[in-house]
Amino acid sequence: MKKLEQLYEGKAKRVFATDDPDKVIVSYKDDATAFNGLKKGTIEGKGIINNRMTNFLMRMLEKNGIPTHYVEEISDRETVVRKVRIVPLEVIVRNVAAGSLSKRLGLPEGTPLKKTVLEFCYKDDALGDPMVNEYHIAAMGWADEQTMAQITGYALRINELLVQYFKPLHIDLIDFKLEFGITTDGVLVLADEISPDTCRFWDTETHEKLDKDRFRRDMGGVEEAYAEISSRLMGE
Amino acid sequence: MKKLEQLYEGKAKRVFATDDPDKVIVSYKDDATAFNGLKKGTIEGKGIINNRMTNFLMRMLEKNGIPTHYVEEISDRETVVRKVRIVPLEVIVRNVAAGSLSKRLGLPEGTPLKKTVLEFCYKDDALGDPMVNEYHIAAMGWADEQTMAQITGYALRINELLVQYFKPLHIDLIDFKLEFGITTDGVLVLADEISPDTCRFWDTETHEKLDKDRFRRDMGGVEEAYAEISSRLMGE
Repeated sequence: MKKLEQLYEGKAKRVFATDDPDKVIVSYKDDATAFNGLKKGTIEGKGIINNRMTNFLMRMLEKNGIPTHYVEEISDRETVVRKVRIVPLEVIVRNVAAGSLSKRLGLPEGTPLKKTVLEFCYKDDALGDPMVNEYHIAAMGWADEQTMAQITGYALRINELLVQYFKPLHIDLIDFKLEFGITTDGVLVLADEISPDTCRFWDTETHEKLDKDRFRRDMGGVEEAYAEISSRLMGE
Repeated sequence: MKKLEQLYEGKAKRVFATDDPDKVIVSYKDDATAFNGLKKGTIEGKGIINNRMTNFLMRMLEKNGIPTHYVEEISDRETVVRKVRIVPLEVIVRNVAAGSLSKRLGLPEGTPLKKTVLEFCYKDDALGDPMVNEYHIAAMGWADEQTMAQITGYALRINELLVQYFKPLHIDLIDFKLEFGITTDGVLVLADEISPDTCRFWDTETHEKLDKDRFRRDMGGVEEAYAEISSRLMGE
């Protein structure tokens, strides 16, 4: 497969065309941003960790019946994925209150939620990715009812699988963000990434943060946290 | 029925105990507030209009199968209602984009919505009545699943009935806020008020605003707008 012209450059990834119209190559950068791009920095080696970790978890999810965009890892930072039309929603799954939910509802970070909470944000940087609900999504035509039912089902199942997978590694999955896309042949698949950029991981015993909150909140030990998660998950 | 001690004073209403433990008296004030209490003022005669209009519309809704807290109007500003435990949610029903939805989604005010939009806000002044979804409501235990299904059904039906009722009066119902409560014998009923304080009403032809936006936005003609709605609805 040939890597052709760059199609898109995002905050943390670049996407390239290939000679297969149904496939693209994703290339992970070390660039880190937070607060809708207001904070910028670099996390050395992040691109490599996020690429490998995303692929590792997507393969695990595929084995458990979740369709994903993953095709093949071709280098440390590059992966072939199925070309998709992204559903313009961030799907947030929460097991424990943290971040914006803690602020919104006045819940101390670390408060367990009695039921899993899903949130949907409309992907629009200019609007600041506003939280929306299923009525907004239907009225604006961002996803139809059937797609939303599938997304909801997948998101809850992915949560079960990830929580279970991270538990013996002494990692609590606090919350995470998913994105879904529709392939050229009309199949809804999990897209984007699953990494310390998009998940909150806390050490089960110490509650130490092993994710991008260390960057967002200037806590130090950012590279070490990414390496720690990577090592617990993939043993290196 | 005897009016006894004041139980509660809100921004626009006072509530008094009565000698019937299942009933209270609501008394409507002329006080107006906006932006979570940051803006304060008086709209002369508002209490009388909102009391009479709310009761008029609640009687109409009752006739059409919507249970409400309404019992009896006892004076210009006072009404006996069933005592309820308020479900701590503002239920917002939208037919046309305006106000916070226009800001959130970048939609010009007046954009028709392809489907009716419901929103839920958690009633908490200190948190600024944050928007929440049905997952937050379930996780926090603010209302159970059955109650939410009833609230959703009533809200959509109330919207149909009100839109239909206002149409021949040349008034477009843009959006409105409802609150529900549970009576001492466990019945879910529509509570609070339906008035230019809680609805956006636009003249169908001129799009003139006939509601509290005139106060919020310092547009002038506030009393006249309330009087105009009252006159079209109740003919005086």
